[in-house]
Amino acid sequence: MILVNGVATASLPIPDRGLAYGDGIFRTFALRDGRVCAWRRQFAKLAADARALGIKCPEEALLRADVGEVTHGATDGAVKIVVTRGSGARGYAYSPGQPATRIVSASELPQHPRHWTKQGVAVHLCSLRLARQPALAGVKHLNRLENVLARAEWSDPEIAEGLLQDSAGNVIGGTMTNLFLVTRDGLLTPDLGHSGVAGVTRERVIESARRNGIACRVAAITLSELFAASEVILVNSLIGAWCIRQLGAAAWEQGSMTATVRRWLEEDDD
Amino acid sequence: MILVNGVATASLPIPDRGLAYGDGIFRTFALRDGRVCAWRRQFAKLAADARALGIKCPEEALLRADVGEVTHGATDGAVKIVVTRGSGARGYAYSPGQPATRIVSASELPQHPRHWTKQGVAVHLCSLRLARQPALAGVKHLNRLENVLARAEWSDPEIAEGLLQDSAGNVIGGTMTNLFLVTRDGLLTPDLGHSGVAGVTRERVIESARRNGIACRVAAITLSELFAASEVILVNSLIGAWCIRQLGAAAWEQGSMTATVRRWLEEDDD
Repeated sequence: MILVNGVATASLPIPDRGLAYGDGIFRTFALRDGRVCAWRRQFAKLAADARALGIKCPEEALLRADVGEVTHGATDGAVKIVVTRGSGARGYAYSPGQPATRIVSASELPQHPRHWTKQGVAVHLCSLRLARQPALAGVKHLNRLENVLARAEWSDPEIAEGLLQDSAGNVIGGTMTNLFLVTRDGLLTPDLGHSGVAGVTRERVIESARRNGIACRVAAITLSELFAASEVILVNSLIGAWCIRQLGAAAWEQGSMTATVRRWLEEDDD
Repeated sequence: MILVNGVATASLPIPDRGLAYGDGIFRTFALRDGRVCAWRRQFAKLAADARALGIKCPEEALLRADVGEVTHGATDGAVKIVVTRGSGARGYAYSPGQPATRIVSASELPQHPRHWTKQGVAVHLCSLRLARQPALAGVKHLNRLENVLARAEWSDPEIAEGLLQDSAGNVIGGTMTNLFLVTRDGLLTPDLGHSGVAGVTRERVIESARRNGIACRVAAITLSELFAASEVILVNSLIGAWCIRQLGAAAWEQGSMTATVRRWLEEDDD
């Protein structure tokens, strides 16, 4: 089921700026046991991303009602919210405060092999390098061609994810996941001030670590630092946490931190 | 009038990847005196951009027929073609060779003050810097948030365009135009190997210059070089050519080259 501005439909007016320019933002999150996971944080991130682009974010109550409607009767699923700057005349200029378009839909949770969770995943090192754009970094906007091109670099279904560096060689994350290294000094996650998406699950892990007395540093990370980590953990709202088992010639045993992160995500779901 | 895959409609299926990820390309060009301007080049550029993203480009005859239909009976207008990678399941992965979506529409030609053509235009120097992404540079794709943010930097209707530099400080062009400097050695236009859109009108000017025995160099350009130019010319398919009259504290008199470029564009329309 898809709702556009609260109305059930399968289509969007062509002049919408979401289509014309990728002028919008989105969120994907899980419904588990009939409960929307981390809704408060998902909405807060949507509102922050809207603010970053000067898009008028729809009210929380409207979006929450839409989510309730598209997930009605379901136990588990993936929910997606897209908010675009709405329809406009030809050209890049827009009227400040023009009404946004909200699109809310639900689908099945993606299915992945069970051993990915139990033993970790194989990851491809992408040759595409992310551009550095501080004005858009961190925001989950609809300009995702870099992710599309990176994802097209492999077709082996046993490879779960692709690892992305920026043009300066910093490790940024996966095509659809954020990343944590386990080091002697605690957790380390890439600074996303120039590239990448600062996801809600990343934020939850950072906060849980701090709450549990585990140091968690946000910094630029080189590939050498990644290879030196005792555990590399990928996270997002739908998969939870996977550790990397293999990346090129490097291999890791499943460590204990991935399970800890997974427990944090199960315990604190808002 | 809007045609989606040849059928008159006002809307697009929500799962289209053009909306989800900006996973597509577009062209905008003019109809003048009942004739589509530079069709052969417009299609060649669309096909090249599709190839760059691995999108299956619709056949020329189909697109040409759509353009004929949306412009039927009209004398002048702006035509837009969008080609997306089509609909897909959730996630960045796509099936190679999946059928693209083609969207063809026509609208009125934009109206600009007559003195912009006669005396040149005032231009804003954008503070946003374009990211450097060689995998996407030159391609007119649907990931245009940088252009949207840059265009939002000014609202004065007397300012015709914004000038963009990349993160390394190179001059790239306008938010919707390509750029030529007139120097002692002939014409100079920015290298677009890392940022920007290599438009059809830019290509036509480069070729016309060479055909007319005027040197035209493609190179990295600094802001100092731009300020030292005797004439700065902005071009695109809808406006033709404007010279810059004012950029910050700098001012230029209308030189003779802008008129020459305009004549080239009128003479050679394919």
